[in-house]
Amino acid sequence: MKDQTEQDQVDAAVRARIQASFDRQGLMRHLGARLTHIGPGRVNISLPTRPEVTQQNGYFHAGATSAIADTAGGYAAFTLFPEGTSVLTVEYKINLLAPAEGERIEAEGTVLRPGRTLTVCRLEVFAVREERRKLVAAGQQTLICVEGRPDQ
Amino acid sequence: MKDQTEQDQVDAAVRARIQASFDRQGLMRHLGARLTHIGPGRVNISLPTRPEVTQQNGYFHAGATSAIADTAGGYAAFTLFPEGTSVLTVEYKINLLAPAEGERIEAEGTVLRPGRTLTVCRLEVFAVREERRKLVAAGQQTLICVEGRPDQ
Amino acid sequence: MKDQTEQDQVDAAVRARIQASFDRQGLMRHLGARLTHIGPGRVNISLPTRPEVTQQNGYFHAGATSAIADTAGGYAAFTLFPEGTSVLTVEYKINLLAPAEGERIEAEGTVLRPGRTLTVCRLEVFAVREERRKLVAAGQQTLICVEGRPDQ
Amino acid sequence: MKDQTEQDQVDAAVRARIQASFDRQGLMRHLGARLTHIGPGRVNISLPTRPEVTQQNGYFHAGATSAIADTAGGYAAFTLFPEGTSVLTVEYKINLLAPAEGERIEAEGTVLRPGRTLTVCRLEVFAVREERRKLVAAGQQTLICVEGRPDQ
Repeated sequence: MKDQTEQDQVDAAVRARIQASFDRQGLMRHLGARLTHIGPGRVNISLPTRPEVTQQNGYFHAGATSAIADTAGGYAAFTLFPEGTSVLTVEYKINLLAPAEGERIEAEGTVLRPGRTLTVCRLEVFAVREERRKLVAAGQQTLICVEGRPDQ
Repeated sequence: MKDQTEQDQVDAAVRARIQASFDRQGLMRHLGARLTHIGPGRVNISLPTRPEVTQQNGYFHAGATSAIADTAGGYAAFTLFPEGTSVLTVEYKINLLAPAEGERIEAEGTVLRPGRTLTVCRLEVFAVREERRKLVAAGQQTLICVEGRPDQ
Repeated sequence: MKDQTEQDQVDAAVRARIQASFDRQGLMRHLGARLTHIGPGRVNISLPTRPEVTQQNGYFHAGATSAIADTAGGYAAFTLFPEGTSVLTVEYKINLLAPAEGERIEAEGTVLRPGRTLTVCRLEVFAVREERRKLVAAGQQTLICVEGRPDQ
Repeated sequence: MKDQTEQDQVDAAVRARIQASFDRQGLMRHLGARLTHIGPGRVNISLPTRPEVTQQNGYFHAGATSAIADTAGGYAAFTLFPEGTSVLTVEYKINLLAPAEGERIEAEGTVLRPGRTLTVCRLEVFAVREERRKLVAAGQQTLICVEGRPDQ
């Protein structure tokens, strides 16, 4: 319920802009990732398990974990940006806390501090098995708002 | 020439172990990445451009850039680990310095400080266009040597 | 009240060990920092404003902000370590979110994921002015538990 | 010799601006740190050993190590900024590679990628004992150029 309310607060145009941008990301489609929540300052992305996203021991590859975390944080920041701008990741840091295994992993990007130029997000990735979530990665990310260059 | 010499210093068994481990990484294969150098404390990975690895503006996705950087650093550390151990990424931090575009990107992982338990690597990713290399990402990574659990 | 309860859960011996360790830190004394909370997996450190901790514009220096954040995280991890061990910072990352000014700054280190060898903490620093707290820095830290070498 | 040449390339006004800014940093003076090199895109800071900069085991405190690393990187970036601007640290990440002990520690900040808005630096800290340097910390830092607000 809380999520629904929060989600409602995001303008339909913003939602559409983010979904369209996500759909243009070849990597997200190639991995099989899906946008599952767009709230003001918070975005979730889900990635089902499959051999194509693993490392050598069959767990989710840190690269896949990071890719959806980075993308979730980027769009979380983007929900708060003015129209006609785009978002770029400046940098991020991520700790891989535990082997990521389960039916899927879910990344959550949350704006920690919005800014006109720079925005800082918290990144979390959970492994989900039989609807139980376990934190498997946590990080922090800096993004920049690029003016005069719409994301399209 | 220097590379060749350096490469020769890596034991054939170590090279085989790393190549076999890399080949088991579903994500690397799915992205189209390739191991291009295995030296003592240094590993390079190359990723050709294709729509499947892009973000919304057609550049290499930060997730793809990070994935090969993380993998290069992991195996760079692994070249220095004793037999019967495996390697896990503890954490990494990466700055995306410039849009990554070109024929391919190349990640280079270099051991900055080896250790019995923890190893620290420097990560660099270059975009290559007509054989000119441009630094597009730089980072730093911490890895742990896991004993009693061979990478297989 | 919650803090008091939480604080009570930390063994008196652990509290004494941490306070004694903190008191041996020449830097903390030299800066004028003070331990203000020791709970299980959470430690707070306070640093009053004075010219000796500033950068060139009169704000708290990022170095002072980071120093108390790093120390708070280190002892937060240490509250969960077994006897006879010591703690070392492996690495940390910190974002300076806003100029730090006020009567004092307060760092809070919180264990995000405890581990036998490695522990990961969240770091937050607040500037306090007339009892209003503002988040001025946020970070993430990796610590290692060193066995067979008591902190003394 | 190389250093001297490089140093000469920095405009006298820039050198004076950086030295004056450094001298206003209460923390650097309080710790006993000293600017030892100002080159284009590279700055070194030295900190002699004394009880006031230690952690609980008598080594240099990670907070002291980080403080001079952060400052060296900040001024390294500042050497490349236009007049009338100031520099702020956005974030940094640092690995503490080995216990820092010796007669002094020396931080070196080097611009890895200059930019109009954001600049990225590499940070290194060496412990010096009988003129032998040992790398004890390494990191990476993002800085922002603030226009219309001179550093004074």
